[in-house]
Amino acid sequence: MKLASLNEGRDGRLVVVSHDLTHYTDAGLIAPTMQAALDNWAQCRPALETLSQALERGAVPTSRFHERQAHCPLPRAFQWADGSAYVNHVQLVRQARGAAMPESFWTDPLMYQGGSDDFVPPRAPIRLADEAWGCDLEAEVGVITTDVPQGISPQAACEHIALVLLVNDVSLRNLIPDELAKGFGFFQAKPASSFSPVAVTPKSLGTLWDGGRLHVTLCVDLDEKPLGRAETGVDMTFDFGTLIAHAARTRNLCAGTIIGSGTVSNRDQSGGPGRPIIDGGLGYSCLAEVRVVETILHGAPTTPFLRHGQTVRIFANDHKGHSIFGAIEQNIVPLNS
Amino acid sequence: MKLASLNEGRDGRLVVVSHDLTHYTDAGLIAPTMQAALDNWAQCRPALETLSQALERGAVPTSRFHERQAHCPLPRAFQWADGSAYVNHVQLVRQARGAAMPESFWTDPLMYQGGSDDFVPPRAPIRLADEAWGCDLEAEVGVITTDVPQGISPQAACEHIALVLLVNDVSLRNLIPDELAKGFGFFQAKPASSFSPVAVTPKSLGTLWDGGRLHVTLCVDLDEKPLGRAETGVDMTFDFGTLIAHAARTRNLCAGTIIGSGTVSNRDQSGGPGRPIIDGGLGYSCLAEVRVVETILHGAPTTPFLRHGQTVRIFANDHKGHSIFGAIEQNIVPLNS
Repeated sequence: MKLASLNEGRDGRLVVVSHDLTHYTDAGLIAPTMQAALDNWAQCRPALETLSQALERGAVPTSRFHERQAHCPLPRAFQWADGSAYVNHVQLVRQARGAAMPESFWTDPLMYQGGSDDFVPPRAPIRLADEAWGCDLEAEVGVITTDVPQGISPQAACEHIALVLLVNDVSLRNLIPDELAKGFGFFQAKPASSFSPVAVTPKSLGTLWDGGRLHVTLCVDLDEKPLGRAETGVDMTFDFGTLIAHAARTRNLCAGTIIGSGTVSNRDQSGGPGRPIIDGGLGYSCLAEVRVVETILHGAPTTPFLRHGQTVRIFANDHKGHSIFGAIEQNIVPLNS
Repeated sequence: MKLASLNEGRDGRLVVVSHDLTHYTDAGLIAPTMQAALDNWAQCRPALETLSQALERGAVPTSRFHERQAHCPLPRAFQWADGSAYVNHVQLVRQARGAAMPESFWTDPLMYQGGSDDFVPPRAPIRLADEAWGCDLEAEVGVITTDVPQGISPQAACEHIALVLLVNDVSLRNLIPDELAKGFGFFQAKPASSFSPVAVTPKSLGTLWDGGRLHVTLCVDLDEKPLGRAETGVDMTFDFGTLIAHAARTRNLCAGTIIGSGTVSNRDQSGGPGRPIIDGGLGYSCLAEVRVVETILHGAPTTPFLRHGQTVRIFANDHKGHSIFGAIEQNIVPLNS
């Protein structure tokens, strides 16, 4: 089953989308919004599944689905918490600035509490007030949970994954050093994130979902050129069950909590830093990593952060080459354009 | 005007409460929930004000208001961001561990992104799984905003303050050092917070609100003994306009965003660390500060963090001794009790 929120009202209008993303049918009789469906998931999920089957059979009225009409599956959420499950990414970033990574980072997930009150629609521009802030994309996998009780085990946490989606966790890299030095984590350095137009149940992902990890090639294009083709199922040190359990160690998580994987990043087969796609590598899911590898290899970065006029595209295809989640596709524009 | 959310459903039921907190009237015809009212504040506020006036006149049906029936004004919120506006608190905590405080902390607000998906009702217990986590209260002032656009000025931000309330920002002190050392800020060290039963418009606070700061004695009792009587209008280095503008520097804030002041803390008149109430001082709004002062004066803390069976009470009275926001009153209990 695939769900989306059409960009109407603050919380969107819930629709069921066809597997091939060409059509949708209204789900308002089951739940008006995605949050309302998640709030009552035990009742709503079976009803939505039935509607999804009817949609595939052509047994209900449908309309053409346009990804540009979709907001994020949750246009605003009560919680967005982002892990750093691809520890290779963390290690590379630290290596570039000559900082050793604590061994505990391989066993204790790193996670930050993100802003969740005002996500940017997947086809809306990223409004960047100042290019000097060093705007970066971060392509990730995310999951939306049902209600999770405090103290849950990683294994049990996997059962609370309602939906899977893609993420663009926008970062302002040049604001990060000063902000993290203050000691309380990210705030201004993490502006509004975006999510794929469509969220998909683990069940309907079939073999692309193994219970705790998504197994796709995460495609990241910058200005219509391939930047990243990382494998999401590889090098993910912590699965989503572990990330959810980490988040729920000292408190409950409300239905509709979104947990991110952190920037997807694969080690290079040679053992060195990852190579660009043009050199036969899997590329990068953020520009910081491009710059890190440039720094390691050449002593200094040459690729700039995002500038006004550039376009970021994040998507993933199934074995047949069909888009699974739709695409996050965003132009970088000035604040008041 | 005073508003509350009765503890019904995930988002509560919006009611208007009488100025003396003895009665309420249903506001469901205007907005079913506090979030719904804030989402449409320009229309809802005047209607709620009219209802409030009718309530005071006895011109509408009323029911007895019991604080224990109220959830937090927003039982869950799309954003909770907590500043450290009382820089004296930050300086004391750092002094105790021999760390100098950067001068910039007096001009650049410190703020962390908190979890907002599952607040604890003001009269519900704090479920503490492990006393060794070092559970602490933090008594604060908070404001709930309307929609705030990115890049707003501190002065203009003051106009976006819809409601004022009290906060208990629960902290797990013994989890903080390891978590902050990881570099991404608080997560597990900040379990669910609580808010006062009643939220109050700035206008109805009269002279107790100066546009950016609340001017009351913040009363904190531990096991029915006075712990803190700090003045919220004194030593607040950053007013709420400045805190909101800080939060909105790189992104919009959605209506219903809650911004906290950080632990209220006054300098001692003598210039030394604050004294306990029993010694003629204004006391403390958290136990960490008690322990810091003990460490400064005697070399080691003697007051333990919160233990199962203890009771915390946070409230503020007006000039006539009447409770303004109702009281946060919470027992500390084991997780599964």
